Amino acid sequence: MAADIAEQPEGFARLLDGPHATAVAEVAAEIAARRPRHVLFVGRGTSDHAALYAAYLTEIRLGLPVASASPSAITLYGARPDFTGALVVGVSQSGGSPDLTGVLSAARETGALTLAVTNNPESPLARAAELSVDVAAGHERAVAATKSYTAELLTLLLLVEGIRTGDGRPGEAERAALARLPELAEATIADRSAEELAQRYRFAPHVVTTGRGYAYPTAREAALKLMETSYVPTLAFSGADLLHGPLAMTDTDVPVLAVVGDGPGGRSMRDVITRLGERRADVVTIGASDIPGAAGRLAVPALDERYSPLLDILPLQKLALALALAKGEDPDAPRGLKKVTSTL
Amino acid sequence: MAADIAEQPEGFARLLDGPHATAVAEVAAEIAARRPRHVLFVGRGTSDHAALYAAYLTEIRLGLPVASASPSAITLYGARPDFTGALVVGVSQSGGSPDLTGVLSAARETGALTLAVTNNPESPLARAAELSVDVAAGHERAVAATKSYTAELLTLLLLVEGIRTGDGRPGEAERAALARLPELAEATIADRSAEELAQRYRFAPHVVTTGRGYAYPTAREAALKLMETSYVPTLAFSGADLLHGPLAMTDTDVPVLAVVGDGPGGRSMRDVITRLGERRADVVTIGASDIPGAAGRLAVPALDERYSPLLDILPLQKLALALALAKGEDPDAPRGLKKVTSTL
Repeated sequence: MAADIAEQPEGFARLLDGPHATAVAEVAAEIAARRPRHVLFVGRGTSDHAALYAAYLTEIRLGLPVASASPSAITLYGARPDFTGALVVGVSQSGGSPDLTGVLSAARETGALTLAVTNNPESPLARAAELSVDVAAGHERAVAATKSYTAELLTLLLLVEGIRTGDGRPGEAERAALARLPELAEATIADRSAEELAQRYRFAPHVVTTGRGYAYPTAREAALKLMETSYVPTLAFSGADLLHGPLAMTDTDVPVLAVVGDGPGGRSMRDVITRLGERRADVVTIGASDIPGAAGRLAVPALDERYSPLLDILPLQKLALALALAKGEDPDAPRGLKKVTSTL
Repeated sequence: MAADIAEQPEGFARLLDGPHATAVAEVAAEIAARRPRHVLFVGRGTSDHAALYAAYLTEIRLGLPVASASPSAITLYGARPDFTGALVVGVSQSGGSPDLTGVLSAARETGALTLAVTNNPESPLARAAELSVDVAAGHERAVAATKSYTAELLTLLLLVEGIRTGDGRPGEAERAALARLPELAEATIADRSAEELAQRYRFAPHVVTTGRGYAYPTAREAALKLMETSYVPTLAFSGADLLHGPLAMTDTDVPVLAVVGDGPGGRSMRDVITRLGERRADVVTIGASDIPGAAGRLAVPALDERYSPLLDILPLQKLALALALAKGEDPDAPRGLKKVTSTL
């Protein structure tokens, strides 16, 4: 898992330049030419969090409505929604889960443009889809997905920005900002605050993660990593949803990890931090700035909120790893899990 | 909260007949005539779970794709997706949260047909929408929503079934099945297994809820009730997502409440129960049949899975109430919460 985490800057560089960048740009140009009217994402687990990030990008950057079909409606209940005019995207590290392949096949039959985003271009999902892109993360050794997650995030970002310009390549400003990504990821991974913080959670019975807007997928993915590797039950909430009920269960014994950037999502989180403070929750933030009322911070470089999810997850992956080790668990082989999960 | 819970059979009866049924049918007929090409639901907390149920119904019964915009994309990041041809539905008990009103206003401006489903026909959300239906649950005394939730579920079911027939009224088979609902709800509420089960969770540090398909919203809503009233951190997963990672954190000390009906969703949960059994998790099911490997069951009458969410939540509401009382908490006034939550 440590090796997978360390390879992420290299994975970013691989996607930003060379044959993989060209392949992504070609698919993005093809999608732009086909002018989908709305987009549907399907994914499970970690890949569902990458799909959620892509959903925000699609709404905000492309102005397209995002549908989010539950695979079970199609695979268990036989629903056959009319997908005319839709782009249906299956996101899966392994490309091996039958429910996602089922959704893409059904969508393709009813006229949708289908795209598989996987780390395995030879997978059933990639074969079921009309278009396919390889996130090129390389073989992932640990069961818990880390480098395949950030590779999915960057691939989906490049696709959306390439669809936006229409020629398949992100705009000049986006390319300039993203060029710094490998180096910023390197610096983020070198920082040791996650390892230090792990001690704080050694005996935490459960953890809450929260974020809003672009940062919400990070909160979800961090929760999954903590559960998979450290076996800490972790509850992820959008900052808004946290105030609509779950706030009641927070107290001094509930540690909160809050992703707080410097854009609109992060600004709207300030009120959430205040409300958590009133409940005397123990809040540690992930972001570039210190937030009043927080007990600590996992430092990440300042970056536009649109790109922050590519960095924010890094210290949280390291925290999950360090906490698993502190508890004497084996983060490479979580109990009860296999690398490829098949659900119908 | 106990009085609110007890009033649900009466609330069902009110919606199934008389002026409220007529009002819902008129709105359903109007929507059917306008032929939306896809549907977007927005809601927060409990109402989001009702919206999730409606999303399954829309995909399965109407064959329409369901979009699920994150309010923050629109209200924080200024996204203006093209909603032409869409039906945009805001679900809110109070109709008072600015983010939902913001989404409906933005959708209406860009050409969507908008509908508010609220327990307050004079609310900002109802005023912002072109169409509005009153779920007619009456004044809800407790902060934790119970009767307004099931009233939202039934209203949304009646709307979908009325859109399906086109004349605004559910089909004959549906009307016959639903006519039994008040009586079945009465019997479900009279059952005492929830009160007995509450003792089992008195010292549980956290709880997991799970279900699939139509039962997944019930798992989500049960988790929220337990957090709001008993302050037990509760993690809700679709049965499929549970296998994609979180399964690792289950062990003998993690109690699982699994909604297992007798239809396709419930049948696909059998495998989940087996996998939980391998992890020696303590599983209690909610359903009409005993499931091998489960330690106990909250009994509900047998019913088509499509309607089960209207009953399955009842023993879980009672469990949340009983557990709060067993812990000496005040379920009517959860700490840190107000009845109307405003998020931007």
